[in-house]
Amino acid sequence: MSETILKRLEELRDIMLIEKIDAFIFPSTDAHNGEYTPDYWKGREFISGFNGSAGTAVVTCEEAALWTDSRYFLAAEEQLAGTTFQLMKIRTEGTPSIPQWLGRKLAHINGAIVGIDGMVNSVNTIRNLETELRNEGGITLRTNFDPLKFIWKGRPVIPVNPIELHPLKYAGETAQSKLERIRKTLRSKHIDGMLVSALDDIAWALNLRGSDVHCNPVFVAYLLIREKTATLFVNEKKLSAHVTEYLKSIGVKTDSYENVTDALLKYDDYNILLDPDETSLTLYKASVSSTMSSGTLTCTPTKAILQTSPIPSMKAVKNAVEIQGFRSAMLRDGIAMVKFLKWLKPAVENGGVTEITIDKKLYEYRSQQPLFRGISFDTIAGYAAHGAIVHYEATSDTDIPLQPRGLVLIDSGAQYLDGTTDITRTVALGPLTEEERHAYTLVLKGHIAIERCRFPSGTSGTQIDILARQFLWREGLNYLHGTGHGVGSYLNVHEGPHQIRMEWKPAPLMAGMTVTDEPGLYLEGKFGVRIENTLLIVSDDSNLSSSLSGDQQFLSFESLTLCPIDKSPIDEQLLTLEEKQWLNSYHKLVYDTLSPHLSSDESKWLADACSPL
Amino acid sequence: MSETILKRLEELRDIMLIEKIDAFIFPSTDAHNGEYTPDYWKGREFISGFNGSAGTAVVTCEEAALWTDSRYFLAAEEQLAGTTFQLMKIRTEGTPSIPQWLGRKLAHINGAIVGIDGMVNSVNTIRNLETELRNEGGITLRTNFDPLKFIWKGRPVIPVNPIELHPLKYAGETAQSKLERIRKTLRSKHIDGMLVSALDDIAWALNLRGSDVHCNPVFVAYLLIREKTATLFVNEKKLSAHVTEYLKSIGVKTDSYENVTDALLKYDDYNILLDPDETSLTLYKASVSSTMSSGTLTCTPTKAILQTSPIPSMKAVKNAVEIQGFRSAMLRDGIAMVKFLKWLKPAVENGGVTEITIDKKLYEYRSQQPLFRGISFDTIAGYAAHGAIVHYEATSDTDIPLQPRGLVLIDSGAQYLDGTTDITRTVALGPLTEEERHAYTLVLKGHIAIERCRFPSGTSGTQIDILARQFLWREGLNYLHGTGHGVGSYLNVHEGPHQIRMEWKPAPLMAGMTVTDEPGLYLEGKFGVRIENTLLIVSDDSNLSSSLSGDQQFLSFESLTLCPIDKSPIDEQLLTLEEKQWLNSYHKLVYDTLSPHLSSDESKWLADACSPL
Repeated sequence: MSETILKRLEELRDIMLIEKIDAFIFPSTDAHNGEYTPDYWKGREFISGFNGSAGTAVVTCEEAALWTDSRYFLAAEEQLAGTTFQLMKIRTEGTPSIPQWLGRKLAHINGAIVGIDGMVNSVNTIRNLETELRNEGGITLRTNFDPLKFIWKGRPVIPVNPIELHPLKYAGETAQSKLERIRKTLRSKHIDGMLVSALDDIAWALNLRGSDVHCNPVFVAYLLIREKTATLFVNEKKLSAHVTEYLKSIGVKTDSYENVTDALLKYDDYNILLDPDETSLTLYKASVSSTMSSGTLTCTPTKAILQTSPIPSMKAVKNAVEIQGFRSAMLRDGIAMVKFLKWLKPAVENGGVTEITIDKKLYEYRSQQPLFRGISFDTIAGYAAHGAIVHYEATSDTDIPLQPRGLVLIDSGAQYLDGTTDITRTVALGPLTEEERHAYTLVLKGHIAIERCRFPSGTSGTQIDILARQFLWREGLNYLHGTGHGVGSYLNVHEGPHQIRMEWKPAPLMAGMTVTDEPGLYLEGKFGVRIENTLLIVSDDSNLSSSLSGDQQFLSFESLTLCPIDKSPIDEQLLTLEEKQWLNSYHKLVYDTLSPHLSSDESKWLADACSPL
Repeated sequence: MSETILKRLEELRDIMLIEKIDAFIFPSTDAHNGEYTPDYWKGREFISGFNGSAGTAVVTCEEAALWTDSRYFLAAEEQLAGTTFQLMKIRTEGTPSIPQWLGRKLAHINGAIVGIDGMVNSVNTIRNLETELRNEGGITLRTNFDPLKFIWKGRPVIPVNPIELHPLKYAGETAQSKLERIRKTLRSKHIDGMLVSALDDIAWALNLRGSDVHCNPVFVAYLLIREKTATLFVNEKKLSAHVTEYLKSIGVKTDSYENVTDALLKYDDYNILLDPDETSLTLYKASVSSTMSSGTLTCTPTKAILQTSPIPSMKAVKNAVEIQGFRSAMLRDGIAMVKFLKWLKPAVENGGVTEITIDKKLYEYRSQQPLFRGISFDTIAGYAAHGAIVHYEATSDTDIPLQPRGLVLIDSGAQYLDGTTDITRTVALGPLTEEERHAYTLVLKGHIAIERCRFPSGTSGTQIDILARQFLWREGLNYLHGTGHGVGSYLNVHEGPHQIRMEWKPAPLMAGMTVTDEPGLYLEGKFGVRIENTLLIVSDDSNLSSSLSGDQQFLSFESLTLCPIDKSPIDEQLLTLEEKQWLNSYHKLVYDTLSPHLSSDESKWLADACSPL
């Protein structure tokens, strides 16, 4: 592999020389700013060989470097070996930012030019980059050139998988109603239209699903919503007669995917909303370019309103049907998980179980469940030291057999037609060290603190994040990932706008939102712990002394995930009475809900796993 | 009083009619954007009669309204009675914002004009207001007119109290060194100069103190810092020969206070830093106006860099001398508090003690201490239901006698030459209700959670705020004020840039900063509880497993305040072992530190107050 990379770098540098570009930046984003990108846009992986979900490659004429976050430090180190790519560890002391690094590397060039493809980078990304590069000795950013067009032989095509209807019995709200809500929001802001680039927002708004992206049931398209019309820009090969008819029935026209730029150039209303974190720079520029309308001689360019899209906050609040769907999907996912966990320990004792076996076995049990549509992200099954690699995915090179001792961390999830799941369990396979028990218990205390939390409406995830970390922080420990994210309804497993994390995320937690609760602890070379449930935010006005609360509405969490949390690694002395009570009552819920659907053997196993502390 | 207000409103409306202004806004701010304003700028109090520290009065031709926050709801209600001013409760459901209210009230006027004095309102305040008013049907804001000049007969003058040196033995760093640090920061941002409007920043930078403002040892002035020069704009009557000589010795010129506008008009460097939250709109406009330099025919206007001032974050981190000063001041303040608390209960039992007596008695004990320079804010001594009025200040009208039962909330502080104190204790005067004990214990648990917290460097106050509120939130309770603020070193009792509060405050908590920890609970008509210590942020790398923490530096808190926390209202069943241990070890610190300085009677009282739970 490393030789292929070296050759690609050589070809890239030849082109850079011709185009007089001193450095080129390859992000992990695509034209729709998605987390998982179709292969067509995997330019960063093509050029660097690094295949993690987040990372940016930068290539100068002499050097190459790749920035990624702590989840991928170990994986990137392995994948970049021999490629001349230097690993840049984000949020680690001493790591320069990309502009700082470029500032240093290009300091000797007068009027240096850095390239980035404006089609696969958002307005905000490029604007920030532009400012930062200007501050680094006046480096110029060029955005209208994509070297991959020249050097990527056999580049995959944009997928043309068929689009499916997402029926009302799972969606809970018609596309007409959703479009009307979006239009109402636009009207209230005096905005004439909006371009939707985010694939999950398009899928949500139209009640359609696809299979163009790994693990995300979305399809590649753009959606232009205007006061009276809506147009879906999509490869027509993806549309069955049924879907075409459906789109017509909800007042949505179709046009070819490539025509979106042209449509924006011709857009003749006064203004248009573009989410600057979601819209590519190239499409933004097309929107604000003035172009001749046929028959007129002058025209004013459209005004771009760069504002957060209203769709993510609509999509994040699940309706009653979606919530019911989540409960049903979680029940089936819980059954699969129980079957898997019951199988796990004896199988490990019998020998021959590896990390990849776990992935396969989980898939097997989940795929037996009705409405299963695949996994919602690549399974992370990390045994012992592999558990400390936050987004570890076992390959045939790294796969190791599980021993009847120590901890295995298993983070997995599935797509069902009625909901998406995301669950992490860390399981003791046999005897544990004191350190493992201590770490596990601290993480569990943090997990419970979020589950038990009540908070006034308007509270953001950043405000409650410390509850999950406080016990770790007290011992000088931490984990360098977020505590929680929204989960889609048969959509992306990572959804905004709300998050629970240290960084400021202003979007308030609202009733009806799903959010994960997944604190962890990672001891490099030793083991990893993470305990994750997906939660639902609910109104909670029980025991309110309204006279004291200034009429504030309170919210709390309800566990959607139904699966026992391994009790054997717990150091009970570290748990308070309230924490034990929470665990016992969660386990009672799990047992009561799942056991009617299990065989008597499975039920017996579950009764033991759910017995009170 | 209400008749006087009605007459003033009449006179104001006459002027508004002449000037064709449809509404006028009177904020609580002054030309230096201070929390306490010299009487000269108390225009909002003049026009409305409301004397709280925060509030905004708005007067239209027909109506008048006053916006204030929950601390002042009850006080404002009383003070506005009969004035025709309507009370607008900020952060209460149904309360319109000022622009919304004006939008409604002026809806019938075509091209409505609202006035506000640009000299006493910051750039940001006016810009935000402008945008919001424009959105309310296109209301125009006029900023160059101050009606108070015409209607305020006998307006107080700007104070001319003498300025004093703040010696190095308390300041710990010379003014030259501070000015050099400020200039270095400006150079690093390629900025040629800055205007300092905040009075405490001027006092800090120059190691000078004054007495122009109630409770804040500052003096009215502006400071213009340039690369080679610095000019203090100040009424020369305030300068003794000694201070004049000192200013000369540190390279600071003086000019008259009124000349600041002119100096900004004449400022001829390329750019100037103005903090848009601190600088008045009028001075900002003067800075960016182009004016002829003598002898040249053309000139470019100066570029205003609207950025946060670098001074508050420098001032917030106390140096070793200041920290030692805080410890000494806290020791003396603690001695005064112990004498006061020892006196309190028997005195109440003997009868005749009122809320005002408490204020006087505290002043008496504190004023006996060396280096005492007055109180740091108006004492809040609220017995029973008065304790629920967050910023209650007893007057002869409201003063009530204390009975040997229930809770009294006492929030007070002092200015000493070597430090500023801020402490709240809630004391049981006799038997309590279950509700009082429960509320007290929940607040105490929150207080302890902040005291015990450890957090990685980079954490902001918003992130840890929930620790103080979590036990209240769990029962649907809350308090609607911040949890903590910085405290000056013989300077303002409220200091930025860091705060602990629900609203997002990005400034990180840093070692060397002071911060209060003051959760509370207020039951209208019943009682109030608040427990406040002033804390110091310290590096805390004890028991760090560096391999686990990603090389993060950890910080924690040390209590500076030395005074027992009343144990008698505690419901011990609600405290965890760790919470009890914290209280016991805090009380041991208080006893060990204070007792050597007390009489044997006082020591005996303290030993009892500090005995372990």
